[in-house]
Amino acid sequence: MQIAKVIGTVVSSYKLPAMQGIKLSLVQFVNEEGQLIPRYEVAADSAVGAGVEEWVLISQRAIAPDPGGKDQRPIDAMVVAIIDTVTLGNRTLYSKKDEYR
Amino acid sequence: MQIAKVIGTVVSSYKLPAMQGIKLSLVQFVNEEGQLIPRYEVAADSAVGAGVEEWVLISQRAIAPDPGGKDQRPIDAMVVAIIDTVTLGNRTLYSKKDEYR
Amino acid sequence: MQIAKVIGTVVSSYKLPAMQGIKLSLVQFVNEEGQLIPRYEVAADSAVGAGVEEWVLISQRAIAPDPGGKDQRPIDAMVVAIIDTVTLGNRTLYSKKDEYR
Amino acid sequence: MQIAKVIGTVVSSYKLPAMQGIKLSLVQFVNEEGQLIPRYEVAADSAVGAGVEEWVLISQRAIAPDPGGKDQRPIDAMVVAIIDTVTLGNRTLYSKKDEYR
Amino acid sequence: MQIAKVIGTVVSSYKLPAMQGIKLSLVQFVNEEGQLIPRYEVAADSAVGAGVEEWVLISQRAIAPDPGGKDQRPIDAMVVAIIDTVTLGNRTLYSKKDEYR
Repeated sequence: MQIAKVIGTVVSSYKLPAMQGIKLSLVQFVNEEGQLIPRYEVAADSAVGAGVEEWVLISQRAIAPDPGGKDQRPIDAMVVAIIDTVTLGNRTLYSKKDEYR
Repeated sequence: MQIAKVIGTVVSSYKLPAMQGIKLSLVQFVNEEGQLIPRYEVAADSAVGAGVEEWVLISQRAIAPDPGGKDQRPIDAMVVAIIDTVTLGNRTLYSKKDEYR
Repeated sequence: MQIAKVIGTVVSSYKLPAMQGIKLSLVQFVNEEGQLIPRYEVAADSAVGAGVEEWVLISQRAIAPDPGGKDQRPIDAMVVAIIDTVTLGNRTLYSKKDEYR
Repeated sequence: MQIAKVIGTVVSSYKLPAMQGIKLSLVQFVNEEGQLIPRYEVAADSAVGAGVEEWVLISQRAIAPDPGGKDQRPIDAMVVAIIDTVTLGNRTLYSKKDEYR
Repeated sequence: MQIAKVIGTVVSSYKLPAMQGIKLSLVQFVNEEGQLIPRYEVAADSAVGAGVEEWVLISQRAIAPDPGGKDQRPIDAMVVAIIDTVTLGNRTLYSKKDEYR
């Protein structure tokens, strides 16, 4: 998975039926030093509900689980977790608590 | 998913049976600042019907749903939605309404 | 899918049983301006039969359909179509007819 | 698979149910000369239990086996082994024994 | 698939059960001009048995067939063939016979 920061939202009214009811977040990737890099994903956030500025974990796994249905959704990136902390050895690279204080 | 702009069409008369009846759109990717980048996909657009100049959402999910049939289609990129708006924080990066006015 | 030009052939006599009977074409990728780029694939061409110099459509879909058998083939790139034309707006980027005239 | 060095940990309390109980390691990739490169993964380490500084093998396979359950986990990178030695021809690029002596 | 040269071996004694009994070869990728490039894979070689210096075909297909068992193996790169010749138009880029003479 990759670490990313939620930076925006994508809205679409005309889409495949299998894409209905999915919140689409624009997330920008963060490198191993905690800096934003020029790479993004429009990631489905069907259950986590991450807000703008939060650091999240993005999975680009090929097969997205479809909680309610029988059809597989054509989703190639998902928000799978909101990150609390990223620790490198003894150093804290990111702490959600610090960010929001 | 990635944001892309429809820039053209690819036509093929000689292809695998599983590729029959699929409209192939040439889409160029857009970065997180809304600029075209030198990366493209020939994406299947079997249901959305996006036109040239429209911004779309491209899924590069490995398994493409095959609406009518039993065979899996060897498709690795699909147009899954036409984008209405892309919002970064409080700023609107793209709005379809503005583009077509 | 990506647009590529067939530039050669790869032959192997010692391979996995699941790879038997598959023609392997060396294809070099073409960018959105119609120029060859330094990226290639050795793509299975089990049904299309594209020849050297032809422009083809390459799918890097994870699961390749296996026409005859029960085993999934460990193929990660396939020739899925021979391209007739690539059109960008009103401009024809490539036309097979012109190439062979 | 890619060779990587465990450099840290990612902690998340709010995540998809399918992500519960998985240790998330931050691993930085190593090139074919044994040097760290600016590329990382947050990899699930559900069974191997690799510690910081250890060299591991990372699989970015699309479908992660789920030991206990019926749901597929949305994991796109896993620690599949702790590396003992990497040998290039007659030269030992890395040996765990040497590192820990 | 990509063309690669076997350059070494990776040994691991502590690994996932699904990784047992698989020979792990370090292979470095070769470009379309026959030159080594700074990209590698640790590829499973469960059946082909390619030796150091041999040119092989690497599949990065997501789902690896598991000859003996019921579990899917978390393998994302496999040696699927030993290459005899690579031909570009009328020119032979590589011939195994010439290499070993």
